[in-house]
Order: sequence, then structure tokens, then C-alpha cells
Amino acid sequence: MQTLRQFREEFEAILSTFCSPRTPSGLYDPVGYILKSGGKRVRPMLCAAGFRFGERGSHELMWKAALALEVFHNFSLVHDDIMDRAPLRRGRPTVHEAWNVPTAILSGDIMLIEVYRLLAEACTVDILPVVLDRFHHTAIGVCEGQQLDMDYEVVDHVEWSDYLTMVRGKTAVLLGGALEIGGLLGGVSTDDARNLGTVGESLGLSFQLMDDWLDVFGKPERTGKMQYGDILRRKKTALVHQAMLHGVPDDREILKAWYMQAPAENIEVDVDLVASILKRSEAGEAVLAEARAYHGQAIRLLDDIPSHRGGRNLLVQLMAELEGRDS
Amino acid sequence: MQTLRQFREEFEAILSTFCSPRTPSGLYDPVGYILKSGGKRVRPMLCAAGFRFGERGSHELMWKAALALEVFHNFSLVHDDIMDRAPLRRGRPTVHEAWNVPTAILSGDIMLIEVYRLLAEACTVDILPVVLDRFHHTAIGVCEGQQLDMDYEVVDHVEWSDYLTMVRGKTAVLLGGALEIGGLLGGVSTDDARNLGTVGESLGLSFQLMDDWLDVFGKPERTGKMQYGDILRRKKTALVHQAMLHGVPDDREILKAWYMQAPAENIEVDVDLVASILKRSEAGEAVLAEARAYHGQAIRLLDDIPSHRGGRNLLVQLMAELEGRDS
Repeated sequence: MQTLRQFREEFEAILSTFCSPRTPSGLYDPVGYILKSGGKRVRPMLCAAGFRFGERGSHELMWKAALALEVFHNFSLVHDDIMDRAPLRRGRPTVHEAWNVPTAILSGDIMLIEVYRLLAEACTVDILPVVLDRFHHTAIGVCEGQQLDMDYEVVDHVEWSDYLTMVRGKTAVLLGGALEIGGLLGGVSTDDARNLGTVGESLGLSFQLMDDWLDVFGKPERTGKMQYGDILRRKKTALVHQAMLHGVPDDREILKAWYMQAPAENIEVDVDLVASILKRSEAGEAVLAEARAYHGQAIRLLDDIPSHRGGRNLLVQLMAELEGRDS
Repeated sequence: MQTLRQFREEFEAILSTFCSPRTPSGLYDPVGYILKSGGKRVRPMLCAAGFRFGERGSHELMWKAALALEVFHNFSLVHDDIMDRAPLRRGRPTVHEAWNVPTAILSGDIMLIEVYRLLAEACTVDILPVVLDRFHHTAIGVCEGQQLDMDYEVVDHVEWSDYLTMVRGKTAVLLGGALEIGGLLGGVSTDDARNLGTVGESLGLSFQLMDDWLDVFGKPERTGKMQYGDILRRKKTALVHQAMLHGVPDDREILKAWYMQAPAENIEVDVDLVASILKRSEAGEAVLAEARAYHGQAIRLLDDIPSHRGGRNLLVQLMAELEGRDS
């Protein structure tokens, strides 16, 4: 039985070939830079796992789809980092910092175009329309999620359900899409593919909740991101939601002063103070509990999906890894 | 026989439906803004003309492909305008000016994603792979052309052949792609479709040469762009190339001082002076002659392609219109 590690090694080799130098280098160098900067390769591994639920299809073609999903994820990081003015990604300067904004825009664009070429090449003609349709659903979700994320930075209050809608778009649909598209390439039924998609979405919600948690509780040398980046950008993360529910009144006032657009006067607040409040409230525990709940939901959903070539096993390995992650 | 004007009206109706309000509005409003800001609809008209060279296919599906091509063109304008810091487009503020850079990036992204959905919907499964392949060739060309355009802003000298490579990417391949994809949807043979693509590329070269010419000789109230925008951004347009060939030595020194990165000292140059040199040299005439040559080439190539449903007639109408354009 192949392990997750073997799948990852196979994928890295394919990614490396994809990143061979091309001209004009001003356009393609940043593509190699971001793709080779590491990352957990969660989406390609989900695609591989989904594929192994089925009993058909070529591994070679599956890797093309897996690559498409990783390129799409990295495209969204390159563009989101411009929008969020993020200086660091995976411990290195972001593309717009290492080059400049025009380069980051255009290199992102070429990545998105390459995504569709890879997807088209990955699919036999019988599954091409359905895979494109499912990918479209995913890609639209990611953009809409990013828009909501930006919208929520400049409103005073965001309901928990709005937060979940945003996260579903920004993170969960792509994890779901990766698992579902892998399944379709492996020849699982449309129903089973949809169910795999739902498993991936639950996993994605859990994943993003952990990401929110890591902004405050993670170690920057492990996450590769700037610590408290979400606080600085006034992102109303799951931690903020939970701290507003569980925190003492004085702390809630301070959070309001930081996160609302028209803060009360005479309150001095800085990033470290907000971080200390998020730490001392029960928000951290509450967010971890939510993350675990979605993780459990994914596990339960998984029980009803027949697995033919070790897909379930691979997915369970990946899920265990994600649950214990610190980066 | 349907005229170009009737085709344009049909297209505007379809475009208008596509631009119906959607949420999140922060993401979709700019899409409607740029698409409804006018433009000559050259690419959809080329797609319609190419389609009418064939004898098969549904008009309804063809319009989806035509829409995809217009959305793609406008996607590239939204992103290029950020990169070029252009304030105006079709007489209105550009998207990043009317909103902001993050919005312009993300709305451009969603447009590119919609392009692929429309293309996938436009194609019956037998032609989907070849249409995606041809579109990929086009889309890559557009991005590579834009990269070369930016690269050429910061080098001292660009050969005429490099200039043509850049223009082929930036403008010509999309015009070629529109005509070719239209042809494929109309059921023309792969060979005829390729030939239509070549016609469109020649037309595209002629089109971009005219565009370069209009930056200096056009009327801003007609072009909708800032006059001398290319000069301000130190774009080494066809006019600059020709002025360096035909201008008197003193004028060439001034052009060098403006367009080279390490200008000679003690030469004071401003935009109006550069414009007056480009006007008084024979560059304008030379560029128009080049444009006419490519236009003539397109006409000659056209003779060998069988036209079944008035495609040739429609294309000739469009070409006549483009040759006499002032905007």
C-alpha cells in the first residue's frame, strides 16, 4: 500500500518538471518561486486520495489534475497576498514583495490559465464537462469567499453564519473540489464524488478554523507567516467571534474598539493587547472544539463512501496529519 | 443577409443579460461596469463572422463563445490597466480608479473564470478539447505579450521583430483566436479554422499599429483614452520605432533621451516635445503604411477560405470599419 509520503514524493517530481524555466522569465520565474516554496500539498493529496476511491483512470492524468489544483491554490495566494498586503508567505517574501505588484498580477493570471490547460489535459472527453463544471463551482467559491473576506474587514459586525459562508468559499470548496475531482478521475459515481466533495468541505472548515487559531497561537517559525497578521488586518476570524461570545465585558470593549470602524474614543488599543485578549479568553479552546467537530463530521461522512484502491486509508492519513498540524 | 449592426445588437442583448446584478456586489459590479462601458466588440464580431464561414452549429452557443472572448478581452484590460497605471478607459475611470486595486484584481480573476465556464458551455463535447486548446494558445499569448510590453518599457532598444512578437501576443492572437474559435463552432475544417486564425492575426497586427498611431494622432474624445499615454509610459510603440528610422539626427537624440533608461545629461525633454517629434517625422505615415500592409495581407489570405453563411461578407464589413476607425 502506498503511503502519503510516497504520493507526496511523486507529486513533487511532477511539480518540479512543471516549474522548468520558461521565457519570458519575468512572467514564469515567479510561478516557479511560489510553487517551489513548499506548502503541505493538501489539495493534490486530496485529489490523489479521491482518485484512489475509484477503480479506474490513469495515475498520470490524475497527477495533472492534482497539479492544476495546486497551481490554482497558489494562484489565489499570489493574488490574495497583494490584496492583503501580506509581506511573507511560507517564510519568504510574497511575490509582489520579491518582484512587484504588476508581476504578481500577471504571473497569477498565467497560473490560472495554466490551471485550465492542465485540467483539460487531465480529463478524458467523457468526464471533461463535469470536471470543468465542478472546478468552476470551486473557483467561483474561492473568489467570492475572498471578496467576502475583504468586505468583512470594513463592517462592524459579522454573524457566525456569514463567517462560515466566507470560509466555505475561501477554503472549503477547494478542498472539497480536490477530493471530488480526484474521485471523478478515478471513476467513482457522480453521487459518491459529490459526497467526497462534502467530506472535503467539512475538512476545509476544520482546516480554516485551525488556520485562524494558528495566527495567534502558532509559532511564526513554523507557520512561515507573520504572527498576528490577521489581527493587524482586522480580520474577524473565528477567534474574534468566540472571544466576543466568551470574553469578559472589558475585553469585549477593547475588541470592539479594534475591530469596529468607528471605535469608542479614549481607548488605546494595539496588536499585542488584542492578541493577549484572544489568548486569555476561552476563544482558543472554543475554536479548536469547532475545528474538531468539523473534522469528526468529515470522518463520519466518509463511512458511507466505498473505497476501492486505498483512497480512504490515504485520506485518513492526511486528515490525521492536518489535525495535528502546527503550520 | 444579416449585417454587422444586427449582429452587434444581438450581442449587446446577450451581454446585458450576462451583466445582471449578482452578489457579492463588490465582486460583480466592476464586471458589469467594464463590460457595459462600450468598446467596439471586435472579438465577438470576429467570432460571429468565423462561425458564419461554417455551415453547422447553433447561434445560441456561438454567442456564448463570443461572450467568453469579450469577457476575456475585458479581463485583460482590467488587469493591464492596473499594471500600466492607466487612469482612463473608454472615457471613464478604470476599475482600479473607480474602486481600488484589490477589487480590480479580484473582479478580473472572476472574469477569467467565467470565460472558461462560457467556453465550456458553448462547446459540444466533440469540439470542446480543440477549442480549449486554441483558447489556451490565445490566452498564453496575451499574457506573454503583456509581459514583453512591460519588459520593453525598461530596456534601451527593442528590435522591430521583438515589437512584432509583442504585438502578436498582446493583440493579434486574440483576434485570430476569436475568428478561429468561431469557425470551429461553425463546423469549418481544422485547416480552415487555422487559416481564419492567421487572417485574424494579420488583422490584429494592423489593429495594434493603428492603436499606436491613435495615441499621438487620435482625438482623446474619440479614443476615450488619455492622449500621449503611451509616450508618458515610455512605450516603444511603432511610431517610436519608425521615428528612430526616419527622423533627423537631433530629433533622434531627443527620443533617445526620453526612451532610454540612462539618458544623456543636459537634455530637457517633455511629453509634448516627444509628441511633436513623432508628429513631424514621417513615422505616422510609415506606421499607417505598415497597418495597411497587414490589412491587405488579411484580405488576400481570406480568398482561399470557403465561406458558407455570409461569414466572409460579415468579416469584410468589420475590416472596412476597423480600417477607417478613429477610436
